[in-house]
Amino acid sequence: MKKDIGAKTLLFPTPVLVVATYDSNGKPNAMTAAWGGICCSDPPCVTISVRKARYTYENLMETKAYTINISGKQHLKEADYFGIESGRTADKFAATGLTPIKSEFVNAPYIGEFPLNLECKVVHVFDLGVHTQFIGEIVNVKMDSSLHKNDRQPLIEQIKPLIFAPGDGSYYSVGDEVGKAFSSGKIYME
Amino acid sequence: MKKDIGAKTLLFPTPVLVVATYDSNGKPNAMTAAWGGICCSDPPCVTISVRKARYTYENLMETKAYTINISGKQHLKEADYFGIESGRTADKFAATGLTPIKSEFVNAPYIGEFPLNLECKVVHVFDLGVHTQFIGEIVNVKMDSSLHKNDRQPLIEQIKPLIFAPGDGSYYSVGDEVGKAFSSGKIYME
Repeated sequence: MKKDIGAKTLLFPTPVLVVATYDSNGKPNAMTAAWGGICCSDPPCVTISVRKARYTYENLMETKAYTINISGKQHLKEADYFGIESGRTADKFAATGLTPIKSEFVNAPYIGEFPLNLECKVVHVFDLGVHTQFIGEIVNVKMDSSLHKNDRQPLIEQIKPLIFAPGDGSYYSVGDEVGKAFSSGKIYME
Repeated sequence: MKKDIGAKTLLFPTPVLVVATYDSNGKPNAMTAAWGGICCSDPPCVTISVRKARYTYENLMETKAYTINISGKQHLKEADYFGIESGRTADKFAATGLTPIKSEFVNAPYIGEFPLNLECKVVHVFDLGVHTQFIGEIVNVKMDSSLHKNDRQPLIEQIKPLIFAPGDGSYYSVGDEVGKAFSSGKIYME
């Protein structure tokens, strides 16, 4: 049996995307978004949605560039702070002690302490309502050199990314591997 | 230290979104997508990206409607199968034994056995490259009546959604709650 609960933005999981930008004076800022994800394989693109009132919205319209920084569990407090404070009134990098580093690929900073950084050029801006969608072409990905790609331990287990649960208002960790993609379902094919 | 690994669609976590549609003859189909997520709070909207060659692409262009069905861990094999088989040559609902039920809100079926179903009307179609983005306004959400919203156990823990890890090619479960959103970061605010 099903119950109808109305028109809600209820989806599991959603990511914890820390979007870093420069303002028109070159001051670095970071904002956390759960509304976003990969949206095209070629060209490789990612989308983030930002409210017009956010400082990051102005920065994105000005610089047309951003990085997405994936936080491990150890930076949960910083990632949450980036979502609740405004760069208009605070220097969020100074407050947290995290390090903004200028990307060589796009006009945006990335967060040195976060293990995975996607460097993006804004290629489309779509106004959807209270949120505007900024689609970025991923021109490069940076990864901590301590991470071993294609090695014994999967990247997701090394990075330990945060998960956001809308409605519940909580962050979760990633649990155990439960199956292989593109193969678990073959039992249904003749 | 960072290493540059090039332009890749590497993001953690990504969701496992089972997109259900009707074709022009009313035959139900389901396809699994990891490229998507919530993209606007008001109107409530979700985005999914679909390759032009997919049967679901034709269905979406025809009906302008879809549901997103969130699979629990117990339907991992079915969710994976929906991603690797084509509705052009197979009846995926018949193969898995899952039940397509006609939505009363949009011209699309939802999957009866999956705990959470978002009923969506396509409001924007954006061609991004190999993927086309279909933005759907969420007009209603259906939930298993056995799920207790705003009760003791968070919805994400009751639903046990799958997580997809790009690059690693594996599915993961959700782990433990690790912090409260909109509050863990307050330690950095004066």
